[in-house]
Amino acid sequence: MAKTKIKKPRRPRAETPRGFRDYFGQDVLQRNAMLARVAEVYHAHGFDPLESSAVETVEALGKFLPDVDRPNEGVFAWQDEDETWMALRYDLTAPLARVYAQHRRDLPNPYRRYAMGPVWRNEKPGPGRYRQFYQCDADTVGAGSVAADAEMCAMLGSALEATGIAADDYVIRVNNRKVLNGVMEVAGVLNPEDPEADAHARGIVLRAVDKLDRLGVSGLRDLLGAGRRDESGDFTEGAGLSPDQIAVILGFTDARRENGTATCAALRDLVGVSKAGLEGVQELETIAELLTAQGPAERIIIDPSVVRGLGYYTGPVFEAELTFEILDEKGRRIQLGSVAGGGRYDDLVTRFTGEKVPATGVSIGVDRLLAGLRAKGRLADNTQGPVVVTVMDRDRTADYQAMAAELRAGGIRAEVFMGGGNMAKQLKYADQRVSPVAVIEGGNERERGVVQIKDLALGARLAANIETHDDWKAQPAQMEVVRSDLVAEVRAMLARAGG
Amino acid sequence: MAKTKIKKPRRPRAETPRGFRDYFGQDVLQRNAMLARVAEVYHAHGFDPLESSAVETVEALGKFLPDVDRPNEGVFAWQDEDETWMALRYDLTAPLARVYAQHRRDLPNPYRRYAMGPVWRNEKPGPGRYRQFYQCDADTVGAGSVAADAEMCAMLGSALEATGIAADDYVIRVNNRKVLNGVMEVAGVLNPEDPEADAHARGIVLRAVDKLDRLGVSGLRDLLGAGRRDESGDFTEGAGLSPDQIAVILGFTDARRENGTATCAALRDLVGVSKAGLEGVQELETIAELLTAQGPAERIIIDPSVVRGLGYYTGPVFEAELTFEILDEKGRRIQLGSVAGGGRYDDLVTRFTGEKVPATGVSIGVDRLLAGLRAKGRLADNTQGPVVVTVMDRDRTADYQAMAAELRAGGIRAEVFMGGGNMAKQLKYADQRVSPVAVIEGGNERERGVVQIKDLALGARLAANIETHDDWKAQPAQMEVVRSDLVAEVRAMLARAGG
Repeated sequence: MAKTKIKKPRRPRAETPRGFRDYFGQDVLQRNAMLARVAEVYHAHGFDPLESSAVETVEALGKFLPDVDRPNEGVFAWQDEDETWMALRYDLTAPLARVYAQHRRDLPNPYRRYAMGPVWRNEKPGPGRYRQFYQCDADTVGAGSVAADAEMCAMLGSALEATGIAADDYVIRVNNRKVLNGVMEVAGVLNPEDPEADAHARGIVLRAVDKLDRLGVSGLRDLLGAGRRDESGDFTEGAGLSPDQIAVILGFTDARRENGTATCAALRDLVGVSKAGLEGVQELETIAELLTAQGPAERIIIDPSVVRGLGYYTGPVFEAELTFEILDEKGRRIQLGSVAGGGRYDDLVTRFTGEKVPATGVSIGVDRLLAGLRAKGRLADNTQGPVVVTVMDRDRTADYQAMAAELRAGGIRAEVFMGGGNMAKQLKYADQRVSPVAVIEGGNERERGVVQIKDLALGARLAANIETHDDWKAQPAQMEVVRSDLVAEVRAMLARAGG
Repeated sequence: MAKTKIKKPRRPRAETPRGFRDYFGQDVLQRNAMLARVAEVYHAHGFDPLESSAVETVEALGKFLPDVDRPNEGVFAWQDEDETWMALRYDLTAPLARVYAQHRRDLPNPYRRYAMGPVWRNEKPGPGRYRQFYQCDADTVGAGSVAADAEMCAMLGSALEATGIAADDYVIRVNNRKVLNGVMEVAGVLNPEDPEADAHARGIVLRAVDKLDRLGVSGLRDLLGAGRRDESGDFTEGAGLSPDQIAVILGFTDARRENGTATCAALRDLVGVSKAGLEGVQELETIAELLTAQGPAERIIIDPSVVRGLGYYTGPVFEAELTFEILDEKGRRIQLGSVAGGGRYDDLVTRFTGEKVPATGVSIGVDRLLAGLRAKGRLADNTQGPVVVTVMDRDRTADYQAMAAELRAGGIRAEVFMGGGNMAKQLKYADQRVSPVAVIEGGNERERGVVQIKDLALGARLAANIETHDDWKAQPAQMEVVRSDLVAEVRAMLARAGG
């Protein structure tokens, strides 16, 4: 700053950048408490934490699109001094693939890690859509068996329950990409001999099936065929399938039956002789068996409509859904939908090493799960502020600090009022902090070796019901106590307020 | 990916980006535990958490340098779609100023917040110098009195002790920018009537004094005068002061006496009739009094050589220093130096609002404090892995999962081996995870209703002292227990291993 003379610049705007948000007090505490509970579950299952850097090379993220000059599609990217393109991570899985490829000779095999932290998406912000949000993942890299996928589903259930979701308030829907691939073979959009052919059309099918909930069957049918024009007039390209092909795919999304066994039988019919498809159905049956052995079967649903939008899944995929409704900002009852999901991705490390490394993982959508817990009243209320020691006489700050220190030593959150202003202003501050108790000591009290302690919560309740100043004075929300009893008396007042 | 055909790209490099690092297992747990203890202290003092977005507009950060096209000096910056320059925050104070200016009408006054998280610096990386690192701050915005500065120093001491630093292993050095300003007035490089004049020279003086430890008196003298050429031949511009002016500044850095009272008297002489200088000395005396009332005076040192490099401090400044030596990578004894610091900055919000808002805060250098705690053996050892239930018979995975689930329900960290391979490979895995116990159940054990449990820690110790395979077999590190006693027996084995 000293080096450059700036000609009176206009004032900067004090605004959170577009699409970002700040979290205050209660929100931070509630999220941290929830993440700590999830971390405990992941840790108890043998996963170790990993915190990779927030920044990756664009090359490692694999988001480089050769047809644009600047690789900022979906990620926040910039060029380093040595010309390398860098970017903020957009999820926690891509960095895991990089870390595993980099350290694979030193890491245990399988490598089981959990990670929690912000990720960034360079997307158009909208209501409830932010460009920075938390994820909370666990992955097993180097485990090819379906047992590892089943473990992920079971652990996800434990994690949800640890945060406060009741056992009958969620389901985990399980499917297998291989079944979908088998169906695509039957529909003639996947040739096992030439797996690259029709990749574009399959991508459209995948994303369309993933949006079935929102699109409905007729919207899905349009997207599988010639394309779809939405209410706003925007046109989305379709997969260009024939009516017969479309019927096969719709048969798949509609294959859910009254129980897992029946659904698997229906899927077995659908995939015909497809090797991948039959393998997928077999894996689904194994997962269902393993999960039934580990917990109540009614929480696990084999659901062919679950495909997950991400292209990198190669086998089992799953989603956890909260089954209760919550109210949105406009008071309408809505389903929260999927709060977590994951699946098997066996090719993600291959990009770096050429070796195929089997991997499976789960990711919790932190904000959605918090919304569900909030709706159910399962988040602790952390809004209560500190006990405020007011300042009657600025020269005696050291004495007031001693009181606050005594309270803290007694396990009570406390501070001395640090601003300027009279008693009314100080009590207004305590009120804004939702402080339970204020401590007041003027010269008179000092001489007599006493302090006033004021039950602010009770005071507020009483104030709503009293009419005259005399009533106010007579109410028991304020009491005089001996200075040496300060901690014990405040503790007793807090206990009464809490009760 | 589906949309673009890429012609066989070369494989991406699996590397942490230049100047960044990844934190594994133990490191994450130790840092989180330390931060949780600091957060508890901040919270007990009445501070509320704030987590602002990692991204700010460059304008809000105030780092825009008009003479460069791209504002990437010191920060990682990029342009948003609407042309706004965005950047990763380089500290937690600039975002606080933005948040406070934005929400000041709704926030309590004073606003007391703590924040912990990564910050990013676009600097040349070097040994121990990373481009992403953690900070852990507390600030009081809207409090102009020295009592608020004294509280910061006292709370910093409590925070250090809460993390495990002994009371006689640190000191807090306190100074006041106003005293330095007074000395600059006396030296003739600051005219209170024209505060903008000589700002450039004062910046050089400030940064030079801040580096006194490293430069020594002769290096400081050079920088105050014509400039300094270091061993490598690089030349650093000097402040261009005359020998008389230099003598005044050196008199200031050398003004520390046997105790605070004497140091303040020496400073009072040095600042002469400077109004700012006398005010600064008065504030120093008040802080010393308040801190002496709150804790042992020997931990607080009035030290004129502490100035803090940042331009924005306006009053009291302080630094916490660990007083023990640690060994560097080459085994040399070094002082860790400052692990935390802070001070008063009354002008930071003014940029946004035009109003002057007094503020004071403290920031802990997380990595340095961790290094100090590690050197003193005060970090918990979290390297122990989970109990590993080995897989003898893949078809019985559900039974093995049931064992792991029982162990976890009993409070014991446990997992089923998820990889492929024989028993030797599974035990090698358990070894790499530093697992305390392995559980083994084959068909034979299954029939007899027993399991083998193996004390891996003891096994490793014994293995170092035995010579024949028979000895190995005879050692008591492995025992057979009744299946239904699994949890109790593993718990007992863990207790023996821990004792």
